[in-house]
Amino acid sequence: MKLATIKDGSRDGQLAVVSRDLKTAQLADAIAPTMQAALDDWNFIAPQLQEIYEQLNSGKAYRAFDFDQKNCMAPLPRAFQWADGSAYVNHVELVRTARNAEMPESFWHDPLMYQGGSDDFTGPNDDIVLGSEEWGIDFESEIAVITDDVPMGCTPFDAASHIKLLMLVNDVSLRNLIPAELAKGFGFFQSKPASSFSPVAVTPDELATAWMDGKVHLPLRSSWNGKLVGQPNAGVDMVFSFPQLIAHLTKTRNARAGTIIGSGTVSNKDASKGYSCIAEQRCLETIANGAAATPFMQFGDTIHIEMLDVRGKSIFGAIDQTVKQGPGKKA
Amino acid sequence: MKLATIKDGSRDGQLAVVSRDLKTAQLADAIAPTMQAALDDWNFIAPQLQEIYEQLNSGKAYRAFDFDQKNCMAPLPRAFQWADGSAYVNHVELVRTARNAEMPESFWHDPLMYQGGSDDFTGPNDDIVLGSEEWGIDFESEIAVITDDVPMGCTPFDAASHIKLLMLVNDVSLRNLIPAELAKGFGFFQSKPASSFSPVAVTPDELATAWMDGKVHLPLRSSWNGKLVGQPNAGVDMVFSFPQLIAHLTKTRNARAGTIIGSGTVSNKDASKGYSCIAEQRCLETIANGAAATPFMQFGDTIHIEMLDVRGKSIFGAIDQTVKQGPGKKA
Repeated sequence: MKLATIKDGSRDGQLAVVSRDLKTAQLADAIAPTMQAALDDWNFIAPQLQEIYEQLNSGKAYRAFDFDQKNCMAPLPRAFQWADGSAYVNHVELVRTARNAEMPESFWHDPLMYQGGSDDFTGPNDDIVLGSEEWGIDFESEIAVITDDVPMGCTPFDAASHIKLLMLVNDVSLRNLIPAELAKGFGFFQSKPASSFSPVAVTPDELATAWMDGKVHLPLRSSWNGKLVGQPNAGVDMVFSFPQLIAHLTKTRNARAGTIIGSGTVSNKDASKGYSCIAEQRCLETIANGAAATPFMQFGDTIHIEMLDVRGKSIFGAIDQTVKQGPGKKA
Repeated sequence: MKLATIKDGSRDGQLAVVSRDLKTAQLADAIAPTMQAALDDWNFIAPQLQEIYEQLNSGKAYRAFDFDQKNCMAPLPRAFQWADGSAYVNHVELVRTARNAEMPESFWHDPLMYQGGSDDFTGPNDDIVLGSEEWGIDFESEIAVITDDVPMGCTPFDAASHIKLLMLVNDVSLRNLIPAELAKGFGFFQSKPASSFSPVAVTPDELATAWMDGKVHLPLRSSWNGKLVGQPNAGVDMVFSFPQLIAHLTKTRNARAGTIIGSGTVSNKDASKGYSCIAEQRCLETIANGAAATPFMQFGDTIHIEMLDVRGKSIFGAIDQTVKQGPGKKA
């Protein structure tokens, strides 16, 4: 099943079911007005949405309309939790190597995770509005899951069944704000502006055999200014599966329905697969040549993030954003 | 005006208006079903709630019932954003001094702030359920504000008008998980379990002249196992006002309606005012005697947090919690 949230001027938009081929959709208003409402009561709501989905796919939905990705908000336009892991430890190791910092051995068995802002997600085609290019604007192409209620102390084994939906994420990062911010010891804050999500969230069964061991075994494609710069396989070199990330999150607290958990920047050790964020390319350049050559994003730059199935069809629709200048730079 | 969220078995509870003396209340269901709904449309909703408030205070509300703090959820049982500052830099300096770490001079003009989990707040009288005493269970008595929509790049001057409500917070912390977690560089995560909030959220005018310069100039009283251990004045030694914290939050992104921003542990340089978290007492002991003597909280311990006005009346009602053992300890 594929679900989207349609822009209607409200804060939470309208929940819609989208056909597998992303061509048609039908509002779910008679079943659940919003994505959060569906997640709050998933076991009761999901089968009803699935019925519409099957009607759409067989061309029998009687209120179908043409699906336009440009009319989408993030599937959850605002969420009660957004926690982002860093499961591709290769990425972390590269960043460390580039700045001559050793990576603790514990990073291979204890997940990194940070709490992100979740009150103001941007839609898949919304501009990335920021105050200054000097902040070091970077995209980060990731995969994320949405859970139902997960109790404190959940094991990785039990966590798998709590994954209800998957999406793509652009976890925009402000690289030049990160060093000073992390030095303060409290983690990311200003360096993580609003994240964006794919037009469509899908149930795990939509990934068929590509969903295995709590990982998505397909390439994640990132195109920067129209040029494909990365296509690492999200199932390769993911050291912590989504169930493991969920177990990490719930060690000391519950996670409530609508919790979004990100994979971290998708990254393969095989450098020929390219990169899912500019910082990684700059690290490779620094390691090879002693200095980074690729600049961060400028106003006007575009980023396109998409995942295709084995037949070349888009699974989640595309994140397609342009960086724009916002309110004047502040010190 | 004073507002509360009444337990009704639902995730968001029912919005109620509470009389100034905290003795009676009336459901606001005809105006806004939930606190978030009120905040989403505050300018339209607040005057209608204010009318009920005046009726309650004059004994003329026709659907009033006895207000019972024990029936309260957190004013926002789940929120789209919880960002906690550390505005009492004295507290930060003590922690640093105790572990022989110098505090960067920048901490006096650049606020510390971390993004907290906001999907599962506990109510003022709910138990603090945790897996292990070995985690180093501590309370943190704080003040928090709730904002409406704040645009990116908001100045401290403009931020003041975005503060709609104030509450008390118990920002429970797991001290023994903090060192390893901060060493990983991504900030707090497992070391910050669910926070609790006061029964009632109040509009700034309820504080009269105690609300000045974006700070609350009244003592915050913390009683641990029935013994008053702290009563620092929240208006003293608060280096960053709430408007300054909001400006920090919105440097690179918008903050949407219902954003909660915490002050950090209230702390006065005058040590005779006691402490708002055990860690601070332990730091003082370490500085004086080379070792901490006061243990962290044990299962069965209670914590009571309250603020009284100049006439000794409770403003927000009381946070009154007991620490309980939850699901078995996990490594």
